[in-house]
Amino acid sequence: MPPAFVLGVDFGTNSARAVVVDCADGRAVGTAVVEYPSGEHGVITDPKDPHLARQHPGDYLVALKGSVTRALRAAKRKQGFAAARVLGVGVDTTGSTPIPVDASCRPLALEKRWRKHPAAQAWLWKDHTGAEEAAAITEAARRHAPEYVAPIGGTYSSEWFWSKIWKCLKVAPEVFDAAASWVELADYVPAVLAGITDPAAIRRCVCAAGHKAMYAEAHGGLPDAAFLARLDPRLAALRGHLFTKAHAADRPAGRLSEAWAQELGLPAGIPIAMGGFDAHYGAVGAGVKSGTLVKIIGTSTCDVAIAPLSAPMADVPGICGIVPGSVMPGWYGLEAGQSAVGDLLNWWVAEVCEGDARLHARLTAEAAGQRPGESGLLALDWNNGNRTILVDPRLTGLLVGQTLHTSRAEVYRALIEATAFGARAIVERLRENGVPIDRVVCCGGIAEKNALFMQVYADVLGHPMHIAGSPQTTALGAAISAAVAAGRYPSFEAAQGKMTSLQAKRFTPRPEARAVYDDLYKMYRELHDTFGAMSGKPDLPTLMKRLLALRERVVAAA
Amino acid sequence: MPPAFVLGVDFGTNSARAVVVDCADGRAVGTAVVEYPSGEHGVITDPKDPHLARQHPGDYLVALKGSVTRALRAAKRKQGFAAARVLGVGVDTTGSTPIPVDASCRPLALEKRWRKHPAAQAWLWKDHTGAEEAAAITEAARRHAPEYVAPIGGTYSSEWFWSKIWKCLKVAPEVFDAAASWVELADYVPAVLAGITDPAAIRRCVCAAGHKAMYAEAHGGLPDAAFLARLDPRLAALRGHLFTKAHAADRPAGRLSEAWAQELGLPAGIPIAMGGFDAHYGAVGAGVKSGTLVKIIGTSTCDVAIAPLSAPMADVPGICGIVPGSVMPGWYGLEAGQSAVGDLLNWWVAEVCEGDARLHARLTAEAAGQRPGESGLLALDWNNGNRTILVDPRLTGLLVGQTLHTSRAEVYRALIEATAFGARAIVERLRENGVPIDRVVCCGGIAEKNALFMQVYADVLGHPMHIAGSPQTTALGAAISAAVAAGRYPSFEAAQGKMTSLQAKRFTPRPEARAVYDDLYKMYRELHDTFGAMSGKPDLPTLMKRLLALRERVVAAA
Repeated sequence: MPPAFVLGVDFGTNSARAVVVDCADGRAVGTAVVEYPSGEHGVITDPKDPHLARQHPGDYLVALKGSVTRALRAAKRKQGFAAARVLGVGVDTTGSTPIPVDASCRPLALEKRWRKHPAAQAWLWKDHTGAEEAAAITEAARRHAPEYVAPIGGTYSSEWFWSKIWKCLKVAPEVFDAAASWVELADYVPAVLAGITDPAAIRRCVCAAGHKAMYAEAHGGLPDAAFLARLDPRLAALRGHLFTKAHAADRPAGRLSEAWAQELGLPAGIPIAMGGFDAHYGAVGAGVKSGTLVKIIGTSTCDVAIAPLSAPMADVPGICGIVPGSVMPGWYGLEAGQSAVGDLLNWWVAEVCEGDARLHARLTAEAAGQRPGESGLLALDWNNGNRTILVDPRLTGLLVGQTLHTSRAEVYRALIEATAFGARAIVERLRENGVPIDRVVCCGGIAEKNALFMQVYADVLGHPMHIAGSPQTTALGAAISAAVAAGRYPSFEAAQGKMTSLQAKRFTPRPEARAVYDDLYKMYRELHDTFGAMSGKPDLPTLMKRLLALRERVVAAA
Repeated sequence: MPPAFVLGVDFGTNSARAVVVDCADGRAVGTAVVEYPSGEHGVITDPKDPHLARQHPGDYLVALKGSVTRALRAAKRKQGFAAARVLGVGVDTTGSTPIPVDASCRPLALEKRWRKHPAAQAWLWKDHTGAEEAAAITEAARRHAPEYVAPIGGTYSSEWFWSKIWKCLKVAPEVFDAAASWVELADYVPAVLAGITDPAAIRRCVCAAGHKAMYAEAHGGLPDAAFLARLDPRLAALRGHLFTKAHAADRPAGRLSEAWAQELGLPAGIPIAMGGFDAHYGAVGAGVKSGTLVKIIGTSTCDVAIAPLSAPMADVPGICGIVPGSVMPGWYGLEAGQSAVGDLLNWWVAEVCEGDARLHARLTAEAAGQRPGESGLLALDWNNGNRTILVDPRLTGLLVGQTLHTSRAEVYRALIEATAFGARAIVERLRENGVPIDRVVCCGGIAEKNALFMQVYADVLGHPMHIAGSPQTTALGAAISAAVAAGRYPSFEAAQGKMTSLQAKRFTPRPEARAVYDDLYKMYRELHDTFGAMSGKPDLPTLMKRLLALRERVVAAA
């Protein structure tokens, strides 16, 4: 077979990365990263509202063109590569990142009138301005349509589709009214490449729809108009301008338009794979399969597993989503996550210790010299709330066991351990609900750089910890989708077999450490279940909320 | 009346301070400090055992002579002063700090044979090597003689007399056997000045005996031989070599010997007041009276109050001691305390933030800009255990409410607040048991230097916070005792009326802050009562102990 290549483009929080991948073995032959030009590292913020995080949609197009053309240029130096041999393009993005668009599928913010309006931008995944709306959606669903939130853990998040659109409706009705439709970034970029100019013609991915928009075929697609009207009649009206069917990545989203083929220097008409979320395609690129949990470890952690569509699958309480086809066709995609992992360590180092990357290295080295249990410390990893299994953003951190000799490195280790305990709670929850997990594959900078972190996880989880072979699993996963869309492989599984790998370095549980961590995990669960209101008896469970409410009252009174 | 003066000598943890005081108004006319020459800042430690803290008894004599002669030299520059006009000497010391002595009342450690033996030194108050012994004493007393521990809060401490002597018996029986008796530092220095050479002739203070050695007239003095024999028959045998009666400061401990009169340049035969603990004489110097709580705020905090002997006084659970005459003749002396106050802030600044005094100043300034409740943080002040009201050294710190934006200054403030909540728990416990508290007088460097600290305390306690007029209240209290012993005043109360004062600066509760702190205090008590096992229901109360036990197991296994 002649050499063939696919392109994966990963739209992250601060930049886009394009990777040209060899279809034979998944090897990257050309890579380029372009930062988004607007805001702070690509994110538009508001000093008056720490929950606001938006992006200018024009940045995506700038970064798309820049990263792809530069990655192709880099690939051209490799033997056997030619742009004509690129068979397809795959795209993954952050999410839920909905964008208001006009009737021609053009983001409102590209028009001069809306250029600077914050509500007309892309509402970045980490925008939490819709917290009130999320709570109201949860409440309404629990009362009137529990089936809408059952597959997504029972609680609707402020990070998701409807919370954001409803918030826009409330604070910027002029933007809401001007929008012909709303499109997830994961659907928008493929639509752009395919030259689609009608929102109704976009082939929306079930990944975004199922995990973030309460879409499920079992209940007839998106939430029904009656339910949406309970929130606001205008949301019910919007329903008709969204979509009726969402799709797994079993067919392409479209084919590369003439215009974009010229822009990028690629063959027109090659398939554009269905878009998907970074975590999901990251899992594909990391080799997710039945029994494997993929952890994408960064500032936060995203966990992805799959389970066969052929077997019955009950809802798993607290798991953010169980969506048929969301990760790979033919499988349930299961998503879970932890709200702060790298961020928790960064908080300790940057905010408290006022240090930098060198201090991370120093504390890691010191902490590596400590034995499990030796510090007498135990922490809850909730400085940014708990995504799974409690699905409660209004939880906060806890550290217990300090003496007058407790060192910053001991706390650093306790925070690593806390995230590992949180990870174990997720694995146990999955397993209790019939999802087998016997192997963990990690990706992300922390997994590759921090051996202490990985060893603690191996000891706490009691499983071997592997590291994905590619340092760019998200883009690789999107590229794999392109290879399947182009027909180079008959299935995702076949493509993964050739195109993904694991690093030789792995971390295995040490029995002694594991025993100590079993004890510590029991105590973690006591704190977790008490402060997370899982037992529900004493008044301790409401303590953090009352602290937060008090704080807010005080700030409001000032 | 011609001008007259008294000397107060304060033996602290690291140095001795002599102050020459004008009897008319308590004004210091000469002051000198001499550091103890041995060990680290006067404390002999053991890198292998963090609980060990000893002092070389010879250091006390070096510091006594040095500080007194230099204070007198300084006083001589003041008009009206002459050494011949010094009417008496008072002494206060740390405690319980027992010293093994020979039959001539000479500390064993002054003999060449024992010079370097750690068990032959003075066992400094903060030596915790006798933790096991303390627990066994508590257990034995609860079972067989609850009246022994009832007046000292129900729990015997590793910092106290019998725990240390029993520990010595176990680890260094040769020292125990060589000792003719054991003398508290507070009794030893007056005995030295009075030229006493027979341990049986020492007039022991009820302050040390009652608060630290389970002495009470109500049960016939020291614990009886049968009880001590339960611990070890050799302790029962030692009882006969200690003392049968302990005394309030209603008569002198002795009169200045010719030899020490020459050493110091003072008139021979002047009265040496009864020795006492620094906190107790500090309370006297701060003007303690009925309704006043004196807080001596340093690395830890000691709280002292008095109540009239004429009224019935029940035991107060958790209060370290209720001893007739221990602070002033005619009054019950009540002692309580917090194990870490300045130390808690020092831990945060030095251990965690790796800063120095300038960082204390910076964090104080930043924290002063925060409003009560604003940080969302709540801490337990137990990094060094809880002395009052839980009397449990095996408790540890807790911090809850952290987010990814929590700053080091917010934690600093939360730690100050935690100590204030701990202080409130003590005040409420006293008041619930019929001890009126309507005014708080503070002494110590933190009280004088840190306005934020004082304001937080005023807001949390809901009482005006005063600062003692003298910066050397402990030495002033000892000097007042000397003035009474010399007959210059008919009573402590009369002497206090003339010789003590308050600073004009005071801190009064701000109603809004107080309301917030009332809410926070309720939550503090929830954590306090749960983790301190006061509710006793869930397994959370044992969590810290299990963490500690696990830690010890791991360390032991290494």
